[in-house]
Amino acid sequence: MTHPLDSLFSPSSIAIIGASRDPVKIPGLLLNFLRKNEFPGEIYPVNPNYPDIGGLACYPSVAAIGRPIDLAIVIIPARAVLGALRECADAKIPNAVIISSGFGEEGGDGIAMQQAIADFARATGMRISGPNAEGFFNEPKQIAATFSPTVDVKPDAPRLLATTRRIGIVAQSGGIGFAFYNRARALGIALSNVISTGNESDLGAGECLDYLVQDPSTDVILLFVEGIRDTEKFLAAARRAAEAGKPVIVTKVGRSGAGERAAASHTASMAGWTAAYDAVFAKYGFIVSNDLDEAVAIAAVLTTSPLPRGDRVAVVTVSGGAGIWGADAVCAQGLQVPELSEPLQASIRALIPSYGSARNPVDITAQAVHSGGLQKTIDLLDASDEIDIILVVISLSSETRMPFKAAELTPLMGAQNKPVVFYSYTLPSNFARKGLAESGVVVLSGLTHIAVALRQLVQHSRFILSAEPEISPSTPLDLSRHLSGGALSEYDSKRLLRAAGVALPDEILVEEKAGLTAAMAGADFPLVMKIQSRDIAHKSEVGGVRVNIATMEQALAAYDALLANASAHRPSAAIQGVLVAPMASKGVEIIIGTLQDVTFGPMVMVGLGGVITELFKDVVWRPAPVSTADARAMLDGLKAAPLLHGFRGAPKADVGALAELIAQISQLASTARDQIAEIELNPVLVHPVGEGVTIVDALVVLTTTDLQRK
Amino acid sequence: MTHPLDSLFSPSSIAIIGASRDPVKIPGLLLNFLRKNEFPGEIYPVNPNYPDIGGLACYPSVAAIGRPIDLAIVIIPARAVLGALRECADAKIPNAVIISSGFGEEGGDGIAMQQAIADFARATGMRISGPNAEGFFNEPKQIAATFSPTVDVKPDAPRLLATTRRIGIVAQSGGIGFAFYNRARALGIALSNVISTGNESDLGAGECLDYLVQDPSTDVILLFVEGIRDTEKFLAAARRAAEAGKPVIVTKVGRSGAGERAAASHTASMAGWTAAYDAVFAKYGFIVSNDLDEAVAIAAVLTTSPLPRGDRVAVVTVSGGAGIWGADAVCAQGLQVPELSEPLQASIRALIPSYGSARNPVDITAQAVHSGGLQKTIDLLDASDEIDIILVVISLSSETRMPFKAAELTPLMGAQNKPVVFYSYTLPSNFARKGLAESGVVVLSGLTHIAVALRQLVQHSRFILSAEPEISPSTPLDLSRHLSGGALSEYDSKRLLRAAGVALPDEILVEEKAGLTAAMAGADFPLVMKIQSRDIAHKSEVGGVRVNIATMEQALAAYDALLANASAHRPSAAIQGVLVAPMASKGVEIIIGTLQDVTFGPMVMVGLGGVITELFKDVVWRPAPVSTADARAMLDGLKAAPLLHGFRGAPKADVGALAELIAQISQLASTARDQIAEIELNPVLVHPVGEGVTIVDALVVLTTTDLQRK
Repeated sequence: MTHPLDSLFSPSSIAIIGASRDPVKIPGLLLNFLRKNEFPGEIYPVNPNYPDIGGLACYPSVAAIGRPIDLAIVIIPARAVLGALRECADAKIPNAVIISSGFGEEGGDGIAMQQAIADFARATGMRISGPNAEGFFNEPKQIAATFSPTVDVKPDAPRLLATTRRIGIVAQSGGIGFAFYNRARALGIALSNVISTGNESDLGAGECLDYLVQDPSTDVILLFVEGIRDTEKFLAAARRAAEAGKPVIVTKVGRSGAGERAAASHTASMAGWTAAYDAVFAKYGFIVSNDLDEAVAIAAVLTTSPLPRGDRVAVVTVSGGAGIWGADAVCAQGLQVPELSEPLQASIRALIPSYGSARNPVDITAQAVHSGGLQKTIDLLDASDEIDIILVVISLSSETRMPFKAAELTPLMGAQNKPVVFYSYTLPSNFARKGLAESGVVVLSGLTHIAVALRQLVQHSRFILSAEPEISPSTPLDLSRHLSGGALSEYDSKRLLRAAGVALPDEILVEEKAGLTAAMAGADFPLVMKIQSRDIAHKSEVGGVRVNIATMEQALAAYDALLANASAHRPSAAIQGVLVAPMASKGVEIIIGTLQDVTFGPMVMVGLGGVITELFKDVVWRPAPVSTADARAMLDGLKAAPLLHGFRGAPKADVGALAELIAQISQLASTARDQIAEIELNPVLVHPVGEGVTIVDALVVLTTTDLQRK
Repeated sequence: MTHPLDSLFSPSSIAIIGASRDPVKIPGLLLNFLRKNEFPGEIYPVNPNYPDIGGLACYPSVAAIGRPIDLAIVIIPARAVLGALRECADAKIPNAVIISSGFGEEGGDGIAMQQAIADFARATGMRISGPNAEGFFNEPKQIAATFSPTVDVKPDAPRLLATTRRIGIVAQSGGIGFAFYNRARALGIALSNVISTGNESDLGAGECLDYLVQDPSTDVILLFVEGIRDTEKFLAAARRAAEAGKPVIVTKVGRSGAGERAAASHTASMAGWTAAYDAVFAKYGFIVSNDLDEAVAIAAVLTTSPLPRGDRVAVVTVSGGAGIWGADAVCAQGLQVPELSEPLQASIRALIPSYGSARNPVDITAQAVHSGGLQKTIDLLDASDEIDIILVVISLSSETRMPFKAAELTPLMGAQNKPVVFYSYTLPSNFARKGLAESGVVVLSGLTHIAVALRQLVQHSRFILSAEPEISPSTPLDLSRHLSGGALSEYDSKRLLRAAGVALPDEILVEEKAGLTAAMAGADFPLVMKIQSRDIAHKSEVGGVRVNIATMEQALAAYDALLANASAHRPSAAIQGVLVAPMASKGVEIIIGTLQDVTFGPMVMVGLGGVITELFKDVVWRPAPVSTADARAMLDGLKAAPLLHGFRGAPKADVGALAELIAQISQLASTARDQIAEIELNPVLVHPVGEGVTIVDALVVLTTTDLQRK
């Protein structure tokens, strides 16, 4: 199977434009690393100033090489780059990695120069990575096309290799991409490729992700995102990863205001709005991690072990205190540390001293290490149906003694029955790392990171990719007559929603007091009355809502009061009238919302309503549209979800009707994405099962709306 | 200043009872480590089987030594230990550390043998640490009285020392205590003493903590707790640490059910109830950490930097992506990364290339490292009033190049103006660690740990030790006539609370229907009526509550209904009557509770009431009694605290009255600790400022109560 980017990331011949004899500057470093890692293909340095560099013939120009070249690496001043690319195109070089900086990230002229490169790529079909990239490192093929010192070869510190499965890394920051590699390498995790995407004039992170998704030598992907530019390619790659079951561990930065400020200035990209990123990541089952070591710990478990089949952890330890801590750590993440069955305990007790414990945590005691009880206990737990994950908590600081024998441990790790994770509470020695690497073990030293990794992997093992929901109706809605009114009042908003097929209570807009009596002829008391004006966004703030109106007299008085309040608080507001509606029966308060994200388009949100939930920010977002099944999954993601399921004797809420409403609203936000900027239904009351939902209040914000409310 | 334990933890002469020539067994290891660390005092091996060990004269018995000895280290079979202690007492040895195991942790005879050691210590005044201890390591005095391999001296890996301030460690698990040391040592943090407390037959963790609190060579304390046994000494030490301003970083394990199960079997101590531990830690300003590296990161900042004076962080970086991540990480912990003022930005811009950013994160670019801009930028931020903390985000993996000059960095760190924290996103090289250690810098590599450490230290800098509240009344309450009734009903509970001086609404217990009319003569409708029975714990579950009773007719009907419901649901319940009470006016729903903790005694809790808060477990505990100021601080600790302070236009709640009630209830739980097991006021309605609080329902559980409700 070949991929269009194979010749870029797996070239047989490389020209280095701007190669240098100076070994500490970037061009010299890159050439040096490429040679030290023993790149098996041809290297053609290009620099008119030298006849040769370090024993390699150096060429005055690309044209002078006269042989086929897969990849040009460009490390020359920014203003000379476009000319060099033209020469590459003339020489039929299909790919370029531009290391040179001084483009979009610098502003000024640099922006136009970067655009010229993008245009050149589009015009010629040349695939261009960068500019301002740190290059890539294809480790299995020994292609160190980067100046990152992390790929340097140190004869006195040979590469530790514990895993056969390989991670691949795509990073929008070269420093961080190679830092992931640096840390993973120290643990013995194998690598396929680190790709730094730079300014992404042509080749974006989405397409690089796609490359690793299809790359058979990549088993687990680490992705570092500042802001996605090639959104469609990214989404396609994400779906392909989910379909292939290839795990993606993602870090998205720019989450804070400060981070976003820097992201905008740093990459000249829209950092986007992070909730939308998280919604997309959730949709495709990406594993989100915001810590380098935590992400690498997740990768370590994924490259050494199968996914867990459940959440039951056995903690095996030689130190009572450390074992308790291990149990606490995984329980704090919501995993179980169940007491073992009596038969299993009995089998373990036969292997350990009387002062040990077989309950779980299983404290085999230091003595049982030497008697072989440690290995045998782990073997028993590996074979048991009671346990899904084994966490070994041990001290591996010794430079001379090893608590395992490779001949015993290797078959256990090779059988891949369940995750077996090794945590050393002292810092692991190189001796221990090397010895255990032979059995396929990566030794971890961060307990919280391990616990989070295990929780993430248990959740990931339950992930199911949902089908793209069918959009109904298939013919786009004609909302045009609702879309010309500037700001919409509640009445306007509900009229629009009704037109889109959303079920709403029967409500009457009374425009003159004289019409009130007639309008209420068939009304069921009690009623609620609400002032309507496109100039009043928050009705209750101006005394614009009256509830529990029980008689016609009260209704007439309320009408006067609502108008008087509006006139007092907002004398210049144009009044549409008073909306008369039945009081909704009781239900769980829910908020449903949508917006259009700058990167990913329509998004739908659901949360429990009310003030306390607002304090706890308990909401779930997903890319719109969602199916009703997706909507149910969203509801399950709320911390307050038990309130919908008959909490403390309350009746179960009509979750089915709620899910249908969420799906319907999400489809509306999706199909009308060019017209509708935001929808907010707040509150929606969810009645007991079979009684449906009531949309009490609604606001639609149009894309064309003047948001400067008075 | 001397401490009674000086001669134990700082001995001039040590006898090793059970010394051995075998260098891999525990006695041999201990002797070896003691000598390799160059203990400057006298060492007397005691073993009748050898004339000498490794060139040291070996004695057949303690008596044969014939010179004064400060400390005996006992490493012989459990059954021989008591005899050896007697010989030590005869030889006037004042202190013993018992390494031998096979006591309380093994159960059976071991428990009695341990008790005999405790009795012996009490009878003789000998101070005994252990049994089952891993010993201690007094590093400045070179006393390695332990067999932990972490104290081994490796000539090819000299001790890295970055700090002049020292950590001291007290651990109820030797393995973990020395693991803290192992990790701190790798970072270059100096140590005063690691003390492993073992089974604490005599000397407990509380007293060891006290030793380090008064120890002038200890600046920061790390404490690892499974379960405190010497509670009074622990509390006194905790108060002394808080008064002295000596930070204590504490890890408490046994938080999970699984952890607690192991704690009970492992240390034969009551692991206690963790919320009480956290309440005590909060009271004394302890810094709680549940991760080894995180705790060590906190210690690293405390030993290299002053406490922060605020929460404004400047992130200084050479890599855009890493800087954004740094800003995100500290913002995620609630710290600020403010945009710098224009004058400060202008000063920084003069030091860095045009494509850098001076906004914050401050991206000085890789180029500015070499031009000196990194150091100068940090100097500017260190001198600025705009910033309280500087986080330097950089790559320190190089084995040859250093981005700082010691001559420039040392004065900055020495001035101690504010925390300056160094994070390397690549793994720091030994070269960088050593070079920066010369300037007093500890290089950290865990970003989340750093962010948590900074948040913790900002919080710690705001800690104020509260005075012990005065207990009023000074003469104990006579509650005897309330304390004989077995289970208490709401009516009984409220009567007891009234007797204790707690203000409650006027309520009438109607025991016969005939009395209802008279009882309600002066009542203000609407009313609430509640069934009262000591056999019915949850009234609403049996239809035992009627609210909004507006007329006498409704009251009569409600009376019959309540009795009928009780009879239907609980036919055998003895009915006390029906409690008639005014409906409380609106307010914020609060729950107040107390209980008696097995380790720390009376505890008081407050939380927002209602179902949603219950889901989010938003409660705060403190040791009782608390002052009203303490109670206000408790309320501030609730996530839902904004609900009390006029959230979204609601009136501000009467927090003063609420704090007074919490203090009063906490004092009652404290003074009546022998009689009252639990108090629960739920709900308490907190009315707008000036309108006080209403206790709607109350339950008191007596210590003598038969908790087996029917």
